[in-house]
Amino acid sequence: MMIVVMQAKATAKQIGEVIRKIEELGFKPHLSKGEEKTIIGVVGNERKIEPTVFTVLSGVEAVIPILKPYKLASREFKSEDTLVSVNGIKIGAAEIIVMAGPCAVESKEQVLKAAQAVKKSGAKILRGGAFKPRTSPYSFQGLGQKGLEILKAAKEKTGLSIVTEVLEPADVNLVSQYADILQIGARNMQNFALLEEVGKINKPVLLKRGMMSTVEELLLSAEYVLSNGNYNVILCERGIRTFEKYTRNTLDISAVALIKRLSHLPVIVDPSHATGDRNLIKPMSKAAIAGGADGLLIEVHPCPEEALCDGYQSLNPEGFEDLMQEVRKIALAVGRKM
Amino acid sequence: MMIVVMQAKATAKQIGEVIRKIEELGFKPHLSKGEEKTIIGVVGNERKIEPTVFTVLSGVEAVIPILKPYKLASREFKSEDTLVSVNGIKIGAAEIIVMAGPCAVESKEQVLKAAQAVKKSGAKILRGGAFKPRTSPYSFQGLGQKGLEILKAAKEKTGLSIVTEVLEPADVNLVSQYADILQIGARNMQNFALLEEVGKINKPVLLKRGMMSTVEELLLSAEYVLSNGNYNVILCERGIRTFEKYTRNTLDISAVALIKRLSHLPVIVDPSHATGDRNLIKPMSKAAIAGGADGLLIEVHPCPEEALCDGYQSLNPEGFEDLMQEVRKIALAVGRKM
Amino acid sequence: MMIVVMQAKATAKQIGEVIRKIEELGFKPHLSKGEEKTIIGVVGNERKIEPTVFTVLSGVEAVIPILKPYKLASREFKSEDTLVSVNGIKIGAAEIIVMAGPCAVESKEQVLKAAQAVKKSGAKILRGGAFKPRTSPYSFQGLGQKGLEILKAAKEKTGLSIVTEVLEPADVNLVSQYADILQIGARNMQNFALLEEVGKINKPVLLKRGMMSTVEELLLSAEYVLSNGNYNVILCERGIRTFEKYTRNTLDISAVALIKRLSHLPVIVDPSHATGDRNLIKPMSKAAIAGGADGLLIEVHPCPEEALCDGYQSLNPEGFEDLMQEVRKIALAVGRKM
Amino acid sequence: MMIVVMQAKATAKQIGEVIRKIEELGFKPHLSKGEEKTIIGVVGNERKIEPTVFTVLSGVEAVIPILKPYKLASREFKSEDTLVSVNGIKIGAAEIIVMAGPCAVESKEQVLKAAQAVKKSGAKILRGGAFKPRTSPYSFQGLGQKGLEILKAAKEKTGLSIVTEVLEPADVNLVSQYADILQIGARNMQNFALLEEVGKINKPVLLKRGMMSTVEELLLSAEYVLSNGNYNVILCERGIRTFEKYTRNTLDISAVALIKRLSHLPVIVDPSHATGDRNLIKPMSKAAIAGGADGLLIEVHPCPEEALCDGYQSLNPEGFEDLMQEVRKIALAVGRKM
Repeated sequence: MMIVVMQAKATAKQIGEVIRKIEELGFKPHLSKGEEKTIIGVVGNERKIEPTVFTVLSGVEAVIPILKPYKLASREFKSEDTLVSVNGIKIGAAEIIVMAGPCAVESKEQVLKAAQAVKKSGAKILRGGAFKPRTSPYSFQGLGQKGLEILKAAKEKTGLSIVTEVLEPADVNLVSQYADILQIGARNMQNFALLEEVGKINKPVLLKRGMMSTVEELLLSAEYVLSNGNYNVILCERGIRTFEKYTRNTLDISAVALIKRLSHLPVIVDPSHATGDRNLIKPMSKAAIAGGADGLLIEVHPCPEEALCDGYQSLNPEGFEDLMQEVRKIALAVGRKM
Repeated sequence: MMIVVMQAKATAKQIGEVIRKIEELGFKPHLSKGEEKTIIGVVGNERKIEPTVFTVLSGVEAVIPILKPYKLASREFKSEDTLVSVNGIKIGAAEIIVMAGPCAVESKEQVLKAAQAVKKSGAKILRGGAFKPRTSPYSFQGLGQKGLEILKAAKEKTGLSIVTEVLEPADVNLVSQYADILQIGARNMQNFALLEEVGKINKPVLLKRGMMSTVEELLLSAEYVLSNGNYNVILCERGIRTFEKYTRNTLDISAVALIKRLSHLPVIVDPSHATGDRNLIKPMSKAAIAGGADGLLIEVHPCPEEALCDGYQSLNPEGFEDLMQEVRKIALAVGRKM
Repeated sequence: MMIVVMQAKATAKQIGEVIRKIEELGFKPHLSKGEEKTIIGVVGNERKIEPTVFTVLSGVEAVIPILKPYKLASREFKSEDTLVSVNGIKIGAAEIIVMAGPCAVESKEQVLKAAQAVKKSGAKILRGGAFKPRTSPYSFQGLGQKGLEILKAAKEKTGLSIVTEVLEPADVNLVSQYADILQIGARNMQNFALLEEVGKINKPVLLKRGMMSTVEELLLSAEYVLSNGNYNVILCERGIRTFEKYTRNTLDISAVALIKRLSHLPVIVDPSHATGDRNLIKPMSKAAIAGGADGLLIEVHPCPEEALCDGYQSLNPEGFEDLMQEVRKIALAVGRKM
Repeated sequence: MMIVVMQAKATAKQIGEVIRKIEELGFKPHLSKGEEKTIIGVVGNERKIEPTVFTVLSGVEAVIPILKPYKLASREFKSEDTLVSVNGIKIGAAEIIVMAGPCAVESKEQVLKAAQAVKKSGAKILRGGAFKPRTSPYSFQGLGQKGLEILKAAKEKTGLSIVTEVLEPADVNLVSQYADILQIGARNMQNFALLEEVGKINKPVLLKRGMMSTVEELLLSAEYVLSNGNYNVILCERGIRTFEKYTRNTLDISAVALIKRLSHLPVIVDPSHATGDRNLIKPMSKAAIAGGADGLLIEVHPCPEEALCDGYQSLNPEGFEDLMQEVRKIALAVGRKM
């Protein structure tokens, strides 16, 4: 169902043309005459057509879709919560799941130290980038496959599952051999070729919201993965771009509760990238869990002062231990486990 | 201190002109030659001059202020937290303070019912608009002075303190006679004539962040009030305007922890206006308190279905009671009282 | 006419309640059942009610207004262009009108020099601020009434009409005695008390778009002035706030052609405040006129290096003469006079 | 050169640590003590290090880079304009170059009709998408290689050069065989793997600004292509995402003049995607050329009413002919050819 709003001065002939087009496309028209304007309902499943099919006709002022453009990702399609399983851990269930580790894989020693520290404090999943998307070509670009092997070694030592980013369709196969969860970064949220590729495998996918994407677009990107057959999608809010200059991005915590209403997929929050400010990670982690998030993605480096990237927004092991203790109190206060 | 960055091709003469100007204004220049560019430090209290005094000179590429433009509002000026007292209640102290009530004062009965309900659930301050700023001239504009009298009557019956908005300088005196806290709304955050006027009285001021204002601008607006002699300022985050369309505004909870670091003033959060969505008020209230807010501003109406404005974002008394119980758990989890 | 969209699982009883409410408010309901959802048209003039009257009812998913919320400002209400007359100059007619002068009135000599220079280059109206809204309380705040007298003196010497800003309702009367056009600044676009006050006089009003305001809100603010009886409103696009950091604001030239379609009011553009960058004023002035603007508002200072405010975004008389010659070519190319 | 700003209360020891770090990294420190704060200049080519190397140290308040992070793309690196040659056409020279054609390649007949029409009106390059990035998985995704062959056929018939989008690194080789210019779409502006791949071929690249990207990030993305050896980069402004709801995006024409100052690369404008509104394409095309753009990218469909995508923002051949005539007048008025 879709609403075609006619201009105030639309003629009977123009209205007739719209009705003819509606019928030609296999839909039913439903006319409503108001005091100032006429509107025409288009009855049927509008997802099959573009609203602009009507906007382009003469005398039409606007076309308003009524159905949400995503379907498989919607709460209306599946009312119970989706739980994503990763080696026995269930993301989206009562337990708050924390994924932590360094921004970039730098060395075996660094990753192992980070892994042991985050495990000790209660993290269940180790994060770390082997392929790094960097705004500047002059920044450190990651260790690539060698980084994946380091992550694998850390997994073997600690038993932590691994989440790591995949940057292009050609790498999906390779990264799948090492990772337990494939991360699609914010800059790739609308890299549709990549979304389709991760939709064809059966590994869980962590899909980060683009920094200037709407919640609707995030759910449409999830729909790409789901409609290709992979239902194991975890969404991640990581801050959106606004005019505020003191923080790198603005963490949109209201998106968590909103997505929980619109969709059945689990949602975690990344306060490290959102704020870009080490001092804001703890309060925003607590706010995220209080606001309903199923988990957190936190940057932890054994020695942030020496990190090759994002040191300033990384916690050291002590800072992470402190964060975990504080977040646990909030988790319990909202009736979750941790 | 301020940094003047010269263009890569700036001549010695242009550099000399900048130095001459710095000295003429009573500052000390401090020259630094890099490989590609020369920069000149301007040593002295830069708040007395505009950066553009230098930008306008030839050969200058950019001017970067180093000091924050606000002073009295800064944590550097006053390191201990400011507590604002309202009839014995201390805003900014360990206790979480909740201000609640209807968007607009509609009738004596409505306000009294709302007041009794919010008091029963633990609110300490009654909110309600007598003068309403409305985007459309065709919307309900408030009862004016009659509304103030209704608020006063509710105060007498319940003992709740009153916070209400003042819209123009000429009304500051009148509103002060009824209100315990004067609210400056988001649309008036840069109504400087109004800020100066409330700076001259000794009533507490609740200053809401403009929906498209930076944290720096909010603190500069607070500076207007402080520098006129009124130190009783409470800041309020109420959502900023972004591209996201599913929520009315995006509640910027990171602003709370950020302001706490930059300033000594107490900060509360208004999740009702920020989200414009009744279902998001409870999770965002919890997130705000977990993130460090000193209090909340909540719209409560005895019968939201019949409200003359903002019914959809108002809680009914049962919803408010539920919110208070949930928020209390968070308050305790972060070591606050409520 | 308004559309109430019911949730997919709305019951017959919930639909019945919405219909009852529609009838109770004196409107006619119009039911449309789709495959997934039911929608209900509300037939009548929706401007008299708030959409949230329905949003608040149970089972309702969304409410979509069909009519624009402004009426008197709309092109549908008045199809021919409004021309605003100022001492024989017609703003909105074929001739491009340029208003120019210093940001702030600083001295008699400065204003007179600026006035003579801009007149010589073809400006018809002199701008200059006597009351200045400043983000920081430590910035120069303007000369007040003395500034108005200086403007009047410049008018007497040069014959130029005067546009100057009014900051608060109490000053409308005073400023009207000196100004030919009263400017409402961007920060006051939603200062409704001020809008009502200038709506009650018969002087032309220059209404600047708030840096955080939508085109719809700008037209609603114009509606405040029109509905109070003053039809002489000139709109002004002056840049909106975005995430881009290299320019102060982002000049939204598409707003010009858009407003021309939605409204009958004349539109001018202020590239000085929009860009905050002297080097961008000329290209953006040309773009604005090519895009359909009826005029320009340009900051010109006899000696920008010594300006008390906004020197960097001010042109000197030579720069302004150059701008006028270039803009004239564009004006002729789009069939306008200048 | 980079500026490290120390906190007001930074100790001598903390300052010493920063200086030690600066020297350890091979840079020279340059100390400046102000009344309230100490700052330390880092002398050397800062592009080799991350600012956060210092932010992470204790006592540091902020780190301010002075050099632009891009180099090869900068006007400082190469002061004369880059002209990109495409089969004898020079983009960036005095002649305004128009690229036009359908959003998506739908059929041989459609493309040929469009090609003949746009050629007749003066376009030099044919645009058309064979691989389409679509927000929804349910939208038409393009004809792929078959679409490329249709474009090639149209090129053979009309002599027009071809610009078409490439979506993933694996397709760069294939698309290069058909296209004269490879387009990187807005959603892929930070698909760094793709940028590197097109940096390794010697075909011209049309790089569109992401709807969420700053001008600095656009130039950094260009730097990826340039630093891989391909200097034939054309930039394209296509609108950025803001809070304004009446237009799809906000066309940032000031970016054109700004980029011309910061960089030597040619810049064109796409008003079709920016506005999403057929009626705004002509005024915005004129504004873009008046503002200094080197060319335009325009959607033209032989029959927009039947387009499979973006019909509403496509011109028909008559509309395009009209646009070209009007734009030509502007081009001449600003001293360009067309």
